[in-house]
Amino acid sequence: MDQPARDRIQRSFDAQTLMTTLGARMTRIDAGEIEITAPILPLALQQQGFGHAGLTFAIGDSAAGYAALTMLPLGNEVVTAEIKINLLAPARGDHLIATGKVIKAGRRICVVTSEVHAVTAGKRTCIAILQGTMVPVPA
Amino acid sequence: MDQPARDRIQRSFDAQTLMTTLGARMTRIDAGEIEITAPILPLALQQQGFGHAGLTFAIGDSAAGYAALTMLPLGNEVVTAEIKINLLAPARGDHLIATGKVIKAGRRICVVTSEVHAVTAGKRTCIAILQGTMVPVPA
Amino acid sequence: MDQPARDRIQRSFDAQTLMTTLGARMTRIDAGEIEITAPILPLALQQQGFGHAGLTFAIGDSAAGYAALTMLPLGNEVVTAEIKINLLAPARGDHLIATGKVIKAGRRICVVTSEVHAVTAGKRTCIAILQGTMVPVPA
Amino acid sequence: MDQPARDRIQRSFDAQTLMTTLGARMTRIDAGEIEITAPILPLALQQQGFGHAGLTFAIGDSAAGYAALTMLPLGNEVVTAEIKINLLAPARGDHLIATGKVIKAGRRICVVTSEVHAVTAGKRTCIAILQGTMVPVPA
Repeated sequence: MDQPARDRIQRSFDAQTLMTTLGARMTRIDAGEIEITAPILPLALQQQGFGHAGLTFAIGDSAAGYAALTMLPLGNEVVTAEIKINLLAPARGDHLIATGKVIKAGRRICVVTSEVHAVTAGKRTCIAILQGTMVPVPA
Repeated sequence: MDQPARDRIQRSFDAQTLMTTLGARMTRIDAGEIEITAPILPLALQQQGFGHAGLTFAIGDSAAGYAALTMLPLGNEVVTAEIKINLLAPARGDHLIATGKVIKAGRRICVVTSEVHAVTAGKRTCIAILQGTMVPVPA
Repeated sequence: MDQPARDRIQRSFDAQTLMTTLGARMTRIDAGEIEITAPILPLALQQQGFGHAGLTFAIGDSAAGYAALTMLPLGNEVVTAEIKINLLAPARGDHLIATGKVIKAGRRICVVTSEVHAVTAGKRTCIAILQGTMVPVPA
Repeated sequence: MDQPARDRIQRSFDAQTLMTTLGARMTRIDAGEIEITAPILPLALQQQGFGHAGLTFAIGDSAAGYAALTMLPLGNEVVTAEIKINLLAPARGDHLIATGKVIKAGRRICVVTSEVHAVTAGKRTCIAILQGTMVPVPA
């Protein structure tokens, strides 16, 4: 991907205030693959003190959505049509890493997957997998 | 539901810091059905200025989870095993209302659905439907 | 719906050989809602002698797809982009009834749900719920 | 896996009459991974003459379910609690191959994925991905 394409993705991400609120940053931008890293902030917990499913979902969904956006011409945004998450383990550790991938980029819809890992002392545990559909919309 | 049962649900909800961050409140607690109301805060937006899918998901998922919890004896919490969201319309308006319902309460798993409506000047628009599985865990 | 519109739906259904194999019939055609009734044939069982999840899925998915087709102009077919099924109880009884409904009919995608009931001596038990996305394609 | 464990899986599969009806065979049994191969029979088509989504689902779901069963002690069967399928391309070609994998084997639930490929003249095309939850039950 060239720099203007990367900049477009980064600008869109930066406009997502929820990502800022959650402390999430885009840590890798490749064609068809996006990585988002986020801490587990005290403001984003569930009732047992682990990261809320809403946090895991939000970064998993955004990583998948931006992965789809890397496959689209300038002038597009994407929105999530649907996405499903299976949660495998509690969201606890030093931080979370979401990796979104494009499985099939179509003209009208784009099928994506995402994995979210929790990292503790360098050790990664997969805590969630997502599978969904993104739809291009005019930017 | 008696008051101790309601109090238990409310206490668990109050411990979810993400709900506080998003300004979400539990506005109805009935056996098998929970309503959560949330504003669309400037801190929870996506790139086009609408509410982020992560916001819609978080309140839809929590409403479904607490609906499941109303069906369980004291001493339990629930966690989301999996849930799927179909997004129907942008999250815009005065506020959002998520309504979670129990479809089947089993001993080991509980099947739930949730709807999220956006309310503008009293008019409700369904913006998302969710379908998922909750699992009881010791509190 | 007028008769040509109903005939179009029926003809498409009749062309699905899997429905014939499973003994499934379309028992109601309304705008936005389709009912399919099927026996639990000896040729469609899982390992414990109940109806296979593939049977429940096939009629639930077809009911949802044809519900979507009722909302589209002549000259279209629909295909399933994605659909999720939660199975609530074993498929056993005299026959199964799948009811598909349109939740939102969009230009590019159509969000649908479906319920499958098992009927035994006139008593209905919900055995599965489905939530999915249909996409129009040229007929 | 030892031979008795493989035999157990094969016997359970052989008891699924829907698999026989669809011409499906189990073509690989490994710990945590199962492959099912099926023709696209004239009896299993949708309205455009491609394999029905119910066929693709049935073999994808069964491959995922038996992958889960390989991880469980003798005396168990598994049933599908929920599963979601994204369809990527029409089911056409010489035959279909479904590969089910265990992502996380828990005591109470097992998270699985499955891919279905269509094979034409030796060339494989991924036509569907599935993500779901299996639950152990007494055999």
